[in-house]
Amino acid sequence: MVMDRTVALAARHGVGVGAHPSFPDLQGFGRRPLTLSPAEIENYILYQLGALAAFARAHGVPLVHVKAHGALANMAAVDPGIAEAIAKGVARFSKELIVVCLAGSAMIEPTEAVGLRVAREAYADRVYEPDGTLQSRKIPGSVIEEPEKAAAQVVRLVREGVIVAHTGQEIGVQADTVCIHGDTPTAIPIAQTIRKKLEEAGVEVKPLGSFL
Amino acid sequence: MVMDRTVALAARHGVGVGAHPSFPDLQGFGRRPLTLSPAEIENYILYQLGALAAFARAHGVPLVHVKAHGALANMAAVDPGIAEAIAKGVARFSKELIVVCLAGSAMIEPTEAVGLRVAREAYADRVYEPDGTLQSRKIPGSVIEEPEKAAAQVVRLVREGVIVAHTGQEIGVQADTVCIHGDTPTAIPIAQTIRKKLEEAGVEVKPLGSFL
Amino acid sequence: MVMDRTVALAARHGVGVGAHPSFPDLQGFGRRPLTLSPAEIENYILYQLGALAAFARAHGVPLVHVKAHGALANMAAVDPGIAEAIAKGVARFSKELIVVCLAGSAMIEPTEAVGLRVAREAYADRVYEPDGTLQSRKIPGSVIEEPEKAAAQVVRLVREGVIVAHTGQEIGVQADTVCIHGDTPTAIPIAQTIRKKLEEAGVEVKPLGSFL
Amino acid sequence: MVMDRTVALAARHGVGVGAHPSFPDLQGFGRRPLTLSPAEIENYILYQLGALAAFARAHGVPLVHVKAHGALANMAAVDPGIAEAIAKGVARFSKELIVVCLAGSAMIEPTEAVGLRVAREAYADRVYEPDGTLQSRKIPGSVIEEPEKAAAQVVRLVREGVIVAHTGQEIGVQADTVCIHGDTPTAIPIAQTIRKKLEEAGVEVKPLGSFL
Repeated sequence: MVMDRTVALAARHGVGVGAHPSFPDLQGFGRRPLTLSPAEIENYILYQLGALAAFARAHGVPLVHVKAHGALANMAAVDPGIAEAIAKGVARFSKELIVVCLAGSAMIEPTEAVGLRVAREAYADRVYEPDGTLQSRKIPGSVIEEPEKAAAQVVRLVREGVIVAHTGQEIGVQADTVCIHGDTPTAIPIAQTIRKKLEEAGVEVKPLGSFL
Repeated sequence: MVMDRTVALAARHGVGVGAHPSFPDLQGFGRRPLTLSPAEIENYILYQLGALAAFARAHGVPLVHVKAHGALANMAAVDPGIAEAIAKGVARFSKELIVVCLAGSAMIEPTEAVGLRVAREAYADRVYEPDGTLQSRKIPGSVIEEPEKAAAQVVRLVREGVIVAHTGQEIGVQADTVCIHGDTPTAIPIAQTIRKKLEEAGVEVKPLGSFL
Repeated sequence: MVMDRTVALAARHGVGVGAHPSFPDLQGFGRRPLTLSPAEIENYILYQLGALAAFARAHGVPLVHVKAHGALANMAAVDPGIAEAIAKGVARFSKELIVVCLAGSAMIEPTEAVGLRVAREAYADRVYEPDGTLQSRKIPGSVIEEPEKAAAQVVRLVREGVIVAHTGQEIGVQADTVCIHGDTPTAIPIAQTIRKKLEEAGVEVKPLGSFL
Repeated sequence: MVMDRTVALAARHGVGVGAHPSFPDLQGFGRRPLTLSPAEIENYILYQLGALAAFARAHGVPLVHVKAHGALANMAAVDPGIAEAIAKGVARFSKELIVVCLAGSAMIEPTEAVGLRVAREAYADRVYEPDGTLQSRKIPGSVIEEPEKAAAQVVRLVREGVIVAHTGQEIGVQADTVCIHGDTPTAIPIAQTIRKKLEEAGVEVKPLGSFL
């Protein structure tokens, strides 16, 4: 089972384990919007957290964070009711968990209102619009595949709180964590380059649980 | 979600909460034998325990016991390899959990060998064969629907360690818990009559977690 | 398998067999809105039609009509793009099939534009709003359970093309078929009373395939 | 949807379309034995045939053959009851369909008894045991990845009705069709080399539907 092997790997390498819950739409890989009641969202979050937490427990590591996946995450970023339902589901499991929210999004406030810590997330491998949203994946070039370019975006973000949109405009982004998509073909060199450039810039990379 | 409502109900009434994990065969309601590796069984047990445990945690009650469902339970009663895989899955989650095993079955030894407590289970509402197995449901009359008859079977079981098979033969059965099927039409009067008759016989009914 | 038994029953009694396709959301019984592309909707319709058509074929009866279920039907009634995707899926299977559409809804035009015959449907057991939509199920009394009342609504609909809304206002409704919900507790007496009252009023009840 | 794209591709290239039905175990990719009644097997076959046939119909191509997948195929090769249930499911859909059976297996007789044509299948890319079964995939080298070696096995099979087992022993195998696993890394060069070597040997490769 993938869940067991992945948690085992994370435990062995000291990587923080987090849940990535989504809509119960396996065929659509959680990427298709589904209209659920807040109570249904809460329960699906709780169910998925619990299932993963059992594997974390079996491997002797804590569950550290939660990040909604796919359509659920996209909807929570703009709909406070959905953000609140996710947060309530997380809080019913544990108020110690950190919730990863898109930096600058409408998801942050309802999550904090429920009493949870938030990690604001920016994207290393995505081009930004001037309004702080991500350029649509349908536009060629919206995914940054060059490790140097992705690392430059992250270093500037961390040191100056700025991301340069595709229009050239500088936007203010406060982030605690950066996302690299595992299915970007150059994901591994991107991660290696980001870490190297951050360390060269005197920035220490730490697990989420250690500073939030 | 049924899981949420059921656990809420159990918490309100002080009923011990237990998991009833099965094969991942929703269409067949877990009643069709599926051939899995021991590692797969372990992981499915862990997954289902974790999911339910999250709801128990959310409602502030402990998870007390585990009882395999359907085909998985039937197979574990006669196949020590499957019994061991279930027990290992449970033990990876917690060694505090009590595993419900068919009284007298091959499931008990491998479960105890893993270091788990066992609750031996007998049936209030089923007719027994002289060898201690249950008479097949395909035989008319194999399900006991009369509350008085079910209660009499339980009282004799508890006081004398004896169940009378349909042949009239007395068989020795040591049990810690009795099962009443929720879908036996007279399940509620059966439960009420059993409790009443046990109390009249001076037997105290206690939750599993309090004496094992 | 329910599908096999139901088609066998319909074949034995000469009832027209129709497909009732929905979103691929078994947990939600197809009642939760899911955002799919038109191509996905087309393909899900085709898949479900084909699966049911195999059973119709095995029992020697034709597939006569198609009626979308749950959230898919509700969305198609107001969104011509969804209605068109359903119609295209049906037409890829067969242009002989009749598509059941809510009488007066936005689903009719796109369905006919694809070249399919439409059966306009009204409800025997639901209270209407003055604008021709159904009163929400959340309002007590919105489901008509009295057989006489349901039959009166249908007889007037058939003879005069009129349904009386809960406000007393008369609304014009042109319908070819009426729906009785199988889960309305009085569904069978409603069906019997409707047939009796229609026959008394000189109206002949015919299968869809015979007059459209 | 994969089904739609695959059938479209087959239609464009004139490749015969066949169904590959399996147990309803998506998580296990149909590779885990599931104990079903003959009626359940029949119905699952019918359901899956119908769903695929709808796409064949939409693309204007006939459904030509059926080959059971995974655990269902392995079980049918040795259990005539399962083979018969599959054949009955196929026959309920159409007696024109050709059923692909492992050459020499116990699946052939029950399939023919139901009145269906059989295509006997041998493996291009698998090492054989002296008894005509396939060497277990757990033994290193049991999958033939070298195109020349696979082609040599097929040419000898077709011209002489002989396959050489890993022990050196020659076994008689009568086959109408050969299987190349799509997930053998060298599947495409294997297919190209087989076709080339067969043509050099004066053997014509034809679609199943044209000679059985």
